[in-house]
Amino acid sequence: MEAFETIKKISAQLKDLSGAASLLGWDQEVYMPAGAIERRATQLGTLAALRHRILAEELAPLLPRVETASLNEKERLNLAQLRLQTQKALKLPAAFVQAQAELAARTQYAWEQAKKQASWQAFCPALEQMVDSKHREAEYYGYTNSPYEALMDSYEPGLTLAEVDPIFEQLLAGLVPLLKSLQGQPQVPDAFLATPVGKDAQWALSMRLLAEMGFDLQHGRQDLSTHPFTTSAGPEDVRLTTLIVERDMQAMLYSTLHEMGHGLYEQGLPAHAYGLPEGEASSLSLHESQSRLWENNIGRSQAFCQWLFPLLAEYMPHALAGKTPEDLYRAVNKVQPGPIRIQADELTYHTHILLRYQVERQLIEGRLAVRDIPDYWSAFLLQHLGIQPTTEADGPLQDIHWAIGAIGYFPTYTLGSLYAAQQYAHMAQQLPELQAQLRTGHFAPIHAWLRQRVHQYGSLYSAREWSLQVLGEPLDPRYFLRYLSDKLVQVYALPIA
Amino acid sequence: MEAFETIKKISAQLKDLSGAASLLGWDQEVYMPAGAIERRATQLGTLAALRHRILAEELAPLLPRVETASLNEKERLNLAQLRLQTQKALKLPAAFVQAQAELAARTQYAWEQAKKQASWQAFCPALEQMVDSKHREAEYYGYTNSPYEALMDSYEPGLTLAEVDPIFEQLLAGLVPLLKSLQGQPQVPDAFLATPVGKDAQWALSMRLLAEMGFDLQHGRQDLSTHPFTTSAGPEDVRLTTLIVERDMQAMLYSTLHEMGHGLYEQGLPAHAYGLPEGEASSLSLHESQSRLWENNIGRSQAFCQWLFPLLAEYMPHALAGKTPEDLYRAVNKVQPGPIRIQADELTYHTHILLRYQVERQLIEGRLAVRDIPDYWSAFLLQHLGIQPTTEADGPLQDIHWAIGAIGYFPTYTLGSLYAAQQYAHMAQQLPELQAQLRTGHFAPIHAWLRQRVHQYGSLYSAREWSLQVLGEPLDPRYFLRYLSDKLVQVYALPIA
Repeated sequence: MEAFETIKKISAQLKDLSGAASLLGWDQEVYMPAGAIERRATQLGTLAALRHRILAEELAPLLPRVETASLNEKERLNLAQLRLQTQKALKLPAAFVQAQAELAARTQYAWEQAKKQASWQAFCPALEQMVDSKHREAEYYGYTNSPYEALMDSYEPGLTLAEVDPIFEQLLAGLVPLLKSLQGQPQVPDAFLATPVGKDAQWALSMRLLAEMGFDLQHGRQDLSTHPFTTSAGPEDVRLTTLIVERDMQAMLYSTLHEMGHGLYEQGLPAHAYGLPEGEASSLSLHESQSRLWENNIGRSQAFCQWLFPLLAEYMPHALAGKTPEDLYRAVNKVQPGPIRIQADELTYHTHILLRYQVERQLIEGRLAVRDIPDYWSAFLLQHLGIQPTTEADGPLQDIHWAIGAIGYFPTYTLGSLYAAQQYAHMAQQLPELQAQLRTGHFAPIHAWLRQRVHQYGSLYSAREWSLQVLGEPLDPRYFLRYLSDKLVQVYALPIA
Repeated sequence: MEAFETIKKISAQLKDLSGAASLLGWDQEVYMPAGAIERRATQLGTLAALRHRILAEELAPLLPRVETASLNEKERLNLAQLRLQTQKALKLPAAFVQAQAELAARTQYAWEQAKKQASWQAFCPALEQMVDSKHREAEYYGYTNSPYEALMDSYEPGLTLAEVDPIFEQLLAGLVPLLKSLQGQPQVPDAFLATPVGKDAQWALSMRLLAEMGFDLQHGRQDLSTHPFTTSAGPEDVRLTTLIVERDMQAMLYSTLHEMGHGLYEQGLPAHAYGLPEGEASSLSLHESQSRLWENNIGRSQAFCQWLFPLLAEYMPHALAGKTPEDLYRAVNKVQPGPIRIQADELTYHTHILLRYQVERQLIEGRLAVRDIPDYWSAFLLQHLGIQPTTEADGPLQDIHWAIGAIGYFPTYTLGSLYAAQQYAHMAQQLPELQAQLRTGHFAPIHAWLRQRVHQYGSLYSAREWSLQVLGEPLDPRYFLRYLSDKLVQVYALPIA
């Protein structure tokens, strides 16, 4: 047991360092003065190098020494995950880890500047360096199939391309006919949500939603950023950002609900397991399942719209005069292809993910050059959604992910939506009063359900294992297809297929 | 040379870590959710322990190996200071450093809570622990005279009690009669500065002052906090805070100028010497000389008030209607004993410092108990200034210093004022157009003077050495006494002594 106690202590120190790095990263996005970027990059590099060194010199040598017989079930799972994670992390040389952390901070900055100028050209050199770095990362990990698979594994342990491709196929096979069936239908009116509402009022509503829906503001906070994100400086310090667009109340509403879902997951992780896999969020598909669940399955449900309507009316009374909760429900579920992923409806969203998945995979497999992305992007959107981005800022510059080195991440967004629908179906079965509770803003049973079924496990299981263990079945895209099709039949008053 | 290059590299890493810790500390004061305090404390402890370890295991062994013959003058000075600082730092055991960093974060939080409740009682247990920890720190350093001297040395290297006491005596011998000479004089009108001005307008003015006076907002920022402070997350990331009191424009004005002075010093340090003593601020008396210089010698001068007046009038037009720059000049130099140190006039300010110096010295020498401070405080203020704090929040709870373990720090505030007056006298001689430049808001020559005479040296010299080297004379309180007496004779139209 002694070795395991020491392992817990060292893991906690490592987590202190990554919490500090998270705060530096958060600060870089929301408050850091622009001229500090180079130094911030080296600071993050130093923290990453130190973490790597402690991992290699202190944690790794202890891992084989633990006598597993003396551990209980959870401790055994923690140890097994720690061994896996450490083994993978130590495939990267320390100098590489440091350089990549520095590069990520710089590339992120280059992306922000390029986005302001709406110039992909301006972003190319930085992204090329990052793609090169990620390619080397994949080589360090090693792979049998594709270097992309090696990268994807960091976000979704164990996920293979042989799983991803059929999922997208199955999904698109359901979504494409659904989209077609909406063509020619009278569009649902949503212009009233474009009534301008001032920044202060939107901010006040956003904070109120967080408070009323159970995000713990004693152990978290919210700020503004151009690209909404969630990060944790520690389990008691979960930081969300949202964005405000004066003529688009939905942008704030659903960014807030989305990031809140991520934040509730972080707040729900067992704090007693600080630094251990049990205390860490699991794969990104499960993380995304939490954000999509609150944003869509809950946040765009009929029952929730009934609760939201009077609240919203306090902040935009003129816009909602003469409207009903049903109008709100229909408006927020309007299907309309557009260029921006985070503002996409639930149906066309996955086309955006497919695009990014194809781009990043081809980038890493050397089949697409960074400079050719905008053309590929436009052609893909035109072909699949019949639209084109108006500027490069609304095109491939819209997302932060590649800039921070998150390549191999996007498929988890689709998996997250699928898991969310599957969870929601199970939840609805197990909480028979769910709809009534949503209508009255009674969210505690949902929190309890999610903590017990999802949060408490941290990353003791991969998403695949978790699904089998907890839901008793593997990931099944049919849940999502059924959920969405049922909703759109209702919203668009379609003939039932 | 090779060893010295490695030393520079390790020093830069250490500075990366202290920059990260500074950001965590800044965040704790301005944005951190309250429930994160315990974790923040351990994070800061981990960072401090790591710094200490790198210092002990990596930096210290290299220091004796450098062949000084191969170094130039500045490198030699850097090395000598590094050796001194490292030797001192390593007198503290790593576990102690970690525990004290954690304690500081917790005590700071306890102080904030106690201040909100205006309850010294609530703060006592935390402060008692801190005093105990600081006493142990002094024991680790070792001392011949007083443990207080050992602590003071951390803020003002080489300063002895044998120097401090006569300085206070000489100062008070000049200030007490000056204060007496004002009694019975008609008081200068300053009520117009208590006209309420909204938070947004005050904030806008504060930011405008920073910009117009040369604080580089590309490499720094300002936020709000209850206790204004300055910290650096790096030389390109200098963070100020100010406070806003709706019915007291002076509180914001002079907090902003004061912290800006600290910030300009941090921004003026040679960034190429990142991590080396040359790149670090010198003793706190020189740091405070920069803040007091901008706050008082410049900020409360007749010429500056002429520049400030029309600017101020944009933000409080009604209050300044019918007033003149001369009215402003007199108002901001009004002498009026009050309970709050940071709002004290330049004359009674040093009585506040003397009080804190006596309290903290007696605390560390075991001659005063934490719980007896409020009585001591009241009696002292009554005796020396004829006033008493209205609540404990306005009494010994007003300052953050002891809470964060800064005991032995306060005397440097008085030294800072003295150095500021001495610098200002030299500057005025060397910049014959100084008054005209202040009247027109032309601050560049002042920045250049300060960078060349003060900032560029970093901490290559102690304040005492710096004074001899650069001003060509030791610290001399007569500069301050002459400066203040000249000004008050003018403001109060006193008969010239």
